[in-house]
Amino acid sequence: MKPEKYAFGLDFGTESVRCLAVNIDSGEEKAVAVSKYPCGVITNRLPGTSITLESNWALQNPGDWLIGLREVVHQILQDGKIAPANVVGIGICFTSSTILPTTDDGTPLSSLPQWKSEPHAWPKLWKHHAAQPEADLFNHLAQQGPEPWLKRYGGLVSSEWLFPKTLQVFRESPECFNAAKRFVEAGDWLVWKLVGRETRSVCQAGYKALWNETDGYPSSFFLEKLKKGFSSILGKLGNDVFPVGTCAGGLTTEMAFQLNLISGTPVGTAIIDAHSAVAGAGVADQGKMVMAMGTSTCHMVLNKKEVFVEGVAGVVKDGIVPGYYGYESGQAATGDIFSWVTEYGVPESYYKESRENGLSLHELLIKKALDRKTGDHGLLALDWLNGNRSVLMNSDLKGVLVGLTLKTKPEDIYRAMIEATAFGTRIIIETYEESGLNIDELHACGGLASNPLIMQIYSDVSGRTINVASSSQTTALGAAILGSVAAGPEHGGYGSYVEAIKKMTKPAKITYKSDQRNIKIYNKNFSKYKLLHDFFGRDNLLMEKFCNH
Amino acid sequence: MKPEKYAFGLDFGTESVRCLAVNIDSGEEKAVAVSKYPCGVITNRLPGTSITLESNWALQNPGDWLIGLREVVHQILQDGKIAPANVVGIGICFTSSTILPTTDDGTPLSSLPQWKSEPHAWPKLWKHHAAQPEADLFNHLAQQGPEPWLKRYGGLVSSEWLFPKTLQVFRESPECFNAAKRFVEAGDWLVWKLVGRETRSVCQAGYKALWNETDGYPSSFFLEKLKKGFSSILGKLGNDVFPVGTCAGGLTTEMAFQLNLISGTPVGTAIIDAHSAVAGAGVADQGKMVMAMGTSTCHMVLNKKEVFVEGVAGVVKDGIVPGYYGYESGQAATGDIFSWVTEYGVPESYYKESRENGLSLHELLIKKALDRKTGDHGLLALDWLNGNRSVLMNSDLKGVLVGLTLKTKPEDIYRAMIEATAFGTRIIIETYEESGLNIDELHACGGLASNPLIMQIYSDVSGRTINVASSSQTTALGAAILGSVAAGPEHGGYGSYVEAIKKMTKPAKITYKSDQRNIKIYNKNFSKYKLLHDFFGRDNLLMEKFCNH
Repeated sequence: MKPEKYAFGLDFGTESVRCLAVNIDSGEEKAVAVSKYPCGVITNRLPGTSITLESNWALQNPGDWLIGLREVVHQILQDGKIAPANVVGIGICFTSSTILPTTDDGTPLSSLPQWKSEPHAWPKLWKHHAAQPEADLFNHLAQQGPEPWLKRYGGLVSSEWLFPKTLQVFRESPECFNAAKRFVEAGDWLVWKLVGRETRSVCQAGYKALWNETDGYPSSFFLEKLKKGFSSILGKLGNDVFPVGTCAGGLTTEMAFQLNLISGTPVGTAIIDAHSAVAGAGVADQGKMVMAMGTSTCHMVLNKKEVFVEGVAGVVKDGIVPGYYGYESGQAATGDIFSWVTEYGVPESYYKESRENGLSLHELLIKKALDRKTGDHGLLALDWLNGNRSVLMNSDLKGVLVGLTLKTKPEDIYRAMIEATAFGTRIIIETYEESGLNIDELHACGGLASNPLIMQIYSDVSGRTINVASSSQTTALGAAILGSVAAGPEHGGYGSYVEAIKKMTKPAKITYKSDQRNIKIYNKNFSKYKLLHDFFGRDNLLMEKFCNH
Repeated sequence: MKPEKYAFGLDFGTESVRCLAVNIDSGEEKAVAVSKYPCGVITNRLPGTSITLESNWALQNPGDWLIGLREVVHQILQDGKIAPANVVGIGICFTSSTILPTTDDGTPLSSLPQWKSEPHAWPKLWKHHAAQPEADLFNHLAQQGPEPWLKRYGGLVSSEWLFPKTLQVFRESPECFNAAKRFVEAGDWLVWKLVGRETRSVCQAGYKALWNETDGYPSSFFLEKLKKGFSSILGKLGNDVFPVGTCAGGLTTEMAFQLNLISGTPVGTAIIDAHSAVAGAGVADQGKMVMAMGTSTCHMVLNKKEVFVEGVAGVVKDGIVPGYYGYESGQAATGDIFSWVTEYGVPESYYKESRENGLSLHELLIKKALDRKTGDHGLLALDWLNGNRSVLMNSDLKGVLVGLTLKTKPEDIYRAMIEATAFGTRIIIETYEESGLNIDELHACGGLASNPLIMQIYSDVSGRTINVASSSQTTALGAAILGSVAAGPEHGGYGSYVEAIKKMTKPAKITYKSDQRNIKIYNKNFSKYKLLHDFFGRDNLLMEKFCNH
């Protein structure tokens, strides 16, 4: 009997790390373990100090990542009864852009006694939003250029990305900036820790650090324009940028010892968690859109061609699956909007009813919404309660509800908001198609994918079949697939994503097909949505009038 | 010592009748009594039968009015220790348009054994909405004319008014229509009962039956066009149409006996309840707008001139106060919208908080809304949750909310809805001024007038001082004033409204003055409201697209 072979997928999230062990021949998900970070998201006080943070700050503790890493690996070895020798490869996905300053050998500044009281020495988590002034400056100057990279990012750089965050350090703590010899993405830093060698993933570099195969990072000329001296950041980034799934090296003896694994076990370059879901959903070719649907939605598309797509969040070659340009778009709030309705827009009687029936408020609203026919509620909404990230790229935009009557009920608003997010997704799909990238079918994963009302509405609105990913942990599975590819055939893994996905993922658990009657109703309502979308979103005068108070 | 003199104001509402005894010299409100109608609003089954009604029907039982009348009069005579001889006059206000078919002597058909099982034989209450097809036909034909009366009603006839309701009888029960020798407004019918003589009030005839001093009712030519034979309705209406406050006659011996009053006590021609509030609020001259604010708002203006005002609900000479053209406009929902927010848009935690603090949900939302600065919520709403009755006259219009974010709270929506109704009122005020009728100050009465947040916002939005009526029962007080004028000096009453109001009403209880800083903010937001108002309300294409599903 052949020994069982496993790939480990490590998924570093905002609050915790998860490890999934996948049998690379059968796709069986053998064991999973989750560990919460002791410090969690640091927003108030620096650990071990009395230093308090300003609002909009969000940091993490690199020590937490290592503690969690050990815990989850030990746990799945034990729970899955997996022999260390049977682990063929390790893949890592990480929330991004999370940036930390380190010394030359990768030691985080925050772990050094002389720096631990300096907030800027700590990793800035993706949702650190205090670098907005830097992002504004960046966009202002880039739009004057225009810089060659700008249109790959829909014309806007987010405050969450590497350059605004490092510019904030440079402006507010030049000493810390100078002490930092490297600024690293957390995913790349973890790989560095594991294999003892610094590499950069094209996924993080491309989507968050404006890196491109041809031009590299933004020019030192541009960076100097931002602030004199800031071009020195270029010497602190890595130029060894690799496609996702490249083998970054083997586990060091030290780390192998700590993790109870075999030294030399292959580790792949990291990938961003959302992007990892593409492989995890079983997609490695063009014509498909993967929607990672949670509090917000990330839309990802693979294609051999590089084209310009209006309002795209990023286009990166080899950034999702090697051999393809990876396109990313997004809706800044989806699940968050539905939760906003349940949090603020549901009366006491509904709480009682939900308790009596053993349903969550979401489930109750879904049940009530299903009792009505499509289109009956007469509402039309714009889903911009957290701005618009695609295609309009305007975070100042706000939500709209049209068609209210004295008979409008919470379930009507709930359903109208679901429809609005579906219309928003259709706008994104149509924008891709107008740019020459066909989208023939949709794949859904994430928390919202288990909601039949949402899935059916998305299928009816888009007129496309939706395949719900079979695994409930697509990002960790994607990381495991990456690990098996990093191992390669020579270490018992796979030579390509296509092969790995074929073996390691299962067909869609549920498939939603469009209902022809509903398509007709929604086509009519979508044309109204577009009218409203353009009225509030494209006319600059009106946008300013209504949305910037 | 002079004997105390009282006028009785009878206020027939939807669910109950109220009687207020007012000392006509001091204005003291000596006693008040309320009696609920035994049958209430009849929407399901005809009393004493197994006949069920279709949806949208709303009937009343004339017997209820008489039972209630006796109860409240007996009660205030007793409570107020009022000698019957000291009652100088009686005034009546009644909800309208409530229409009943009677025999020649005023006996309601519904009280006759041979008709009591026929729904059309019963009084159709103002909120009977089953005559919409008749109203549609009426408007369709009238707009082809155009008929001379059409523009006095903003170009639209409501299904609540006399002609659609009687046309419904004619179409659906010709036998009943033929058996009816008179079709009477409930207010006129009650006066008929009291004084034994049929009269018609110009208020009901003018605002609800399209009657006008010059032209009378609509022409028989037009009525025949509606349906052959329908012009016979003209023989069933009254042509003795009198200004409000005219003495219709003295109490009959029979009624005096039943009510424990003196035979011959003067009774005035009736007035519609909302219109009665003008005198009750102390207004008998031009330059002022009285807002009767409850579930909806009725705006009333007196002026010596007759002009055309866009979207006016009605203009009637002598219809509110003799000697003036009475203008009426309306917002189809105000208090109803705020109640919609508390009913559907407030989470369980707010219910708890309101109970713990001994506040109603309205009071809690007001408290929370007051904690924020004007304009802070960033929302803009259109207050058309029950259509638009002025200036756009379109019941198909629906409400709109612009500016939602994930941080939008129930109190923000509550406040935005208050502001939207205030903007709607300002549109009406500006339309009057553009038509040449100045509105220098506002007078408020009704349930909403006791709400300081609403009053201050209305003052800030309109830039005008608001006087809150001193009496909490302005409609009944208005009816008592009418009774004192009907009595006239010869029976111990007054010779004019001006005189009666001077003696019988008190200065405003509370006066709200505009806050200059808020005026500035609201002027800006009002210009946005107008933009939104015209976008959704005036552009026919868009109106149809968004509002007629």
